[in-house]
This record gives sequence, structure tokens and C-alpha cells, in this order.
Amino acid sequence: MKLLRHGAKGAEKPALLDAQGRIRDLSGVLDDITAESLAGPLQQRLRGLDADSLPVVTQPGRLAPPWSGMGKFICIGLNYADHAAESGLPVPQEPVIFMKPTSAVIGCNDPVVLPRDSVKSDWEVELGVVIGRRARYVPVQQALDHVAGYCVVNDLSEREYQLERGGTWDKGKGCDTFGPVGPWLVTADEIADPQSLDLWLDVNGQRKQNGNTRTMVFGVAELVSYVSRFMTLHPGDLISTGTPPGVGMGQKPQAVYLKPGDTMRLGIAGLGEQEQRVHAWNPELIDG
Amino acid sequence: MKLLRHGAKGAEKPALLDAQGRIRDLSGVLDDITAESLAGPLQQRLRGLDADSLPVVTQPGRLAPPWSGMGKFICIGLNYADHAAESGLPVPQEPVIFMKPTSAVIGCNDPVVLPRDSVKSDWEVELGVVIGRRARYVPVQQALDHVAGYCVVNDLSEREYQLERGGTWDKGKGCDTFGPVGPWLVTADEIADPQSLDLWLDVNGQRKQNGNTRTMVFGVAELVSYVSRFMTLHPGDLISTGTPPGVGMGQKPQAVYLKPGDTMRLGIAGLGEQEQRVHAWNPELIDG
Repeated sequence: MKLLRHGAKGAEKPALLDAQGRIRDLSGVLDDITAESLAGPLQQRLRGLDADSLPVVTQPGRLAPPWSGMGKFICIGLNYADHAAESGLPVPQEPVIFMKPTSAVIGCNDPVVLPRDSVKSDWEVELGVVIGRRARYVPVQQALDHVAGYCVVNDLSEREYQLERGGTWDKGKGCDTFGPVGPWLVTADEIADPQSLDLWLDVNGQRKQNGNTRTMVFGVAELVSYVSRFMTLHPGDLISTGTPPGVGMGQKPQAVYLKPGDTMRLGIAGLGEQEQRVHAWNPELIDG
Repeated sequence: MKLLRHGAKGAEKPALLDAQGRIRDLSGVLDDITAESLAGPLQQRLRGLDADSLPVVTQPGRLAPPWSGMGKFICIGLNYADHAAESGLPVPQEPVIFMKPTSAVIGCNDPVVLPRDSVKSDWEVELGVVIGRRARYVPVQQALDHVAGYCVVNDLSEREYQLERGGTWDKGKGCDTFGPVGPWLVTADEIADPQSLDLWLDVNGQRKQNGNTRTMVFGVAELVSYVSRFMTLHPGDLISTGTPPGVGMGQKPQAVYLKPGDTMRLGIAGLGEQEQRVHAWNPELIDG
């Protein structure tokens, strides 16, 4: 099932995407797609539901993050060997964990707004793993049982803030609008193998990133298991699993960064596509 | 005003501490002390309220985190020059930002539970700054207008996870129970100068940390202003402002870390005291 939310900020409605690609209204079945509901109530409500019986939404408007109430947005760094190489950093011995604040989360096509003095804002297409069942010291073999589903994430990163301003990476990862999520939360039953998904990202129509989740250093099950040894994962938590090569920082002969007017388009096989336009600093575009 | 919440997890009630140190029930005045309410509604409700008219709570039970719905838990590293020295790290040129997940937050006297294989869990008494008004590119001169109040924070840290396992500090900062907050949220009007507060921490009755916020490298107003350039701060967000010297990692002749059965007691002048007992891994103590 492909779950989504649509509508203006603060007034989002739940829906699903049917087999024909039409958006079907779920607001008669549930109030919202929430973090808590991913733990079970949602599946109960949707079990046996005939998508054809739901009203078609012809004008969905804005696509919102596909669930509300995300508690943690955990990211894995340098998880594709080729990307570690382009970043000039060794392949990690164990997963690199950092965090984005949930205030960075936006809908998949919402405007991306550069910080006022940003000169090195960069893109990163990533496979997002959405937790559905509490995970704490979960063995690798059982880790996928704790996954509700998957989604596309753009882990936007200001490289100067991340790498040249002291402190940890978090400083360059958490800017407002730097966490587009969606369009859909695709339930795990639809993804036979999370380690064989093509993912790609274009800037202004030019292919920049092109990879497949099979080249991850640490796979999804390993990551869920690993993170669950350092903190309990709760329903609605998101793990973004790292990016393949082709980020702006790694472009040859020289790095290329985002500028106002650029358009990013990115997607993962089976999980849908995002498209964001890049804007100069404008707080109205964040709050709107 | 000293605001607090008390009661079992999921059933917390709002209250305040009166001038005589008695807990007064606020549940007839407001449902809860929430992140959103800190932006204004709470002050409106409490304006002109006569604390003596509120029922005394004689058996408050557990003290909970003093507000619900914290969105971000931002921490500042190496913000006391002496602590940077004991950590063997240079005093930073600009504030070091890292994050704790909000899943690490517990009440001020709740059990601290060591991760299963922890050998280097450590204490850090810190001044917590609670945001009351949205802050975005806020000048230093106006930064304190965005502060709802202050609280005691224990920024517990697993040093092996933080420093020896690759990746950023977040790995050792976010373990369950590693974020005691409280006992009270003391509103900003009660703290004439946040840069002149004594803070201290004892382990098993022995003084380990002893400092004053006047020796911070970057003061509260600078920190709020600085962080607001990298991400919008929202009501209910918490900034923990770094720790003075005396952490376990810095003990001489050799480092000392927490072990089951230890008791931490810590406090800040005017902001109250915390006391946590340290336990070996036991998930029931986390969920209880």
C-alpha cells in the first residue's frame, strides 16, 4: 500500500495511491496517518479495505510528509563505498549515525529554501526506512519485522556548515526545508528486497546521482539492528540510509552547489518521485 | 514561576511550585504544560493567578519532564574552556552543535539505565534553555526575548559510543534515559542573569562538577542567536548549553565512569535539583 497525506500545512488529510495511480481519500476511514498508527491501528483499519470503494481525490493539492508525529530523523553517513570515496573519507568500519531535527521535514515537492548565507548546499537521494514496531537490541535477522515501510528522502546538506564550522555534522544537516520526505510511505509488503532498488537524482534535468541500494555498505536490516543498540526506535521514526555517489561536493572538475532557481528531481524504484525548486532565503516559503 | 508536571508516564498533570516550595495543582487551569502553550497561551492562563488559591498536591509521585512535546533537544559541546581542556580538545572558535533524540528525555529523578555493554557512561550537569517564541536569525541583543525559561539538564554521554565508534557524537548522546530534564521549568523572569548561576554535580555524595555559567565560552544569548542561523527554534525546543569541568572522562589519575548502584545528584542555583540512580540494562525501568 502507498500511503500519503495531502493538503496545506496543519490541514493534511490521509489518502492512499491506488493501483491505477489515483489518490483515494482515507479521511472517512482514519483521522490521520500518525506515528502511533503505524504500530498497528492503521493496518487494522485498512485490512480488507477495497481501494475502489474510496472517493477519488481529483485535486489533492500539496503532498505532505506521508505521516505525522515523526519522533526521530536518524541518518547514516558514508553508507555507499563510492560516496565515501568522493567525499575523501574512508569507508566506515561501523555505521556512522547523525541526526536531522524533525523541524527540517517538508513534503516531497515543497520549496527548498537556502539559508541566508549558504554557499555549499547539496543534494543526497536516500532510501528512508520507517519504523513500525518498537526496536531495541533487535537482531539483524528480525530487524525487518520492525519496518513499516519505505520512502524517498532528500538529505539536503550545507557542506560548509557540516564540515568547516566546527562541531558535528548536525549543523549542516538540519536547516529548515532540508528534509523532503515522500511522496508515499510504501508499506514493507510491497518491497520484496530493499537491497535492490535503483535510486537517482537530477539537477536541472541532468542526472547527478545514479545508484542501487545493493551497493550499501550496511544494509537496511543491519542498520535497524545497529541503531537499536544505541537508542530505542519508536513507530514513526525515520532512518535515512545514506546516499550513492554524485553529490554536488563530489562533482568534477569542481564541486557544484545548489542555487536559487535550480530544480531537483529524485526517485527510487517503486517509491515514487520528488521534485523541489530551490529558493533564496525567504521565510514565507518555509511557513507557508 | 516554577512550572512542573508530575505523575506516571502518559498521565502527567501540570502544577507549579509556590514560594513556600509546595506543589500546587494546575490541572483545573490548564490540561498540560505543552510546547505550544509556552508560546503564549500558558502565560495568558496563568497571568494574575493566585498560587494560594490552587490545591496543594501532597503526594505528587514522579516528577516528569516539565513540559510535553519537545521538538528538538540541541546540545552545545565544549562550551566551558576548562571542560574543553579536560577533554583534550581545543576551545571551539564557534559553538559546537550536536543533538540528542527526544526519546532520551526522562524526568529529573527517573532511573538512568546503562546500555547493555556500556563501559564509559558519564555525567554532565548543564543549564537548559527552553524556547518560548520562534527564533530564526535572531540578533544576540534580542535572543533572550525568545527564551521561556531555564531548567537543569543532565547530558549523559557514553564516551566509547561518542568518541571511539566512528561517526558523530550523537551515537553516544542519545541512549534511552540519557536526558533527565527538570525538576522545574523556571520562567525567564525569575532568572535575572543566566550567566551567573552556580551549577554542581555529585556522584555518590562526592562533588565532581562545580562551576558557574559565567565561565561559558558562548553565553545563552549568543547560543540562541547562533543556533537560530542554522535551524528555526520552535517553542518547547531545548538547548543544553554545555558542561563545566569534572566529568568522569576527565577524572585524575584516571577516568571514572558510572556503574549500577551509583547515585548522581545535581543542581543549578534557583533551578532545583535532580537525583538519579544508575541501573544496569533493564528495559522495564525505561518503559515503566
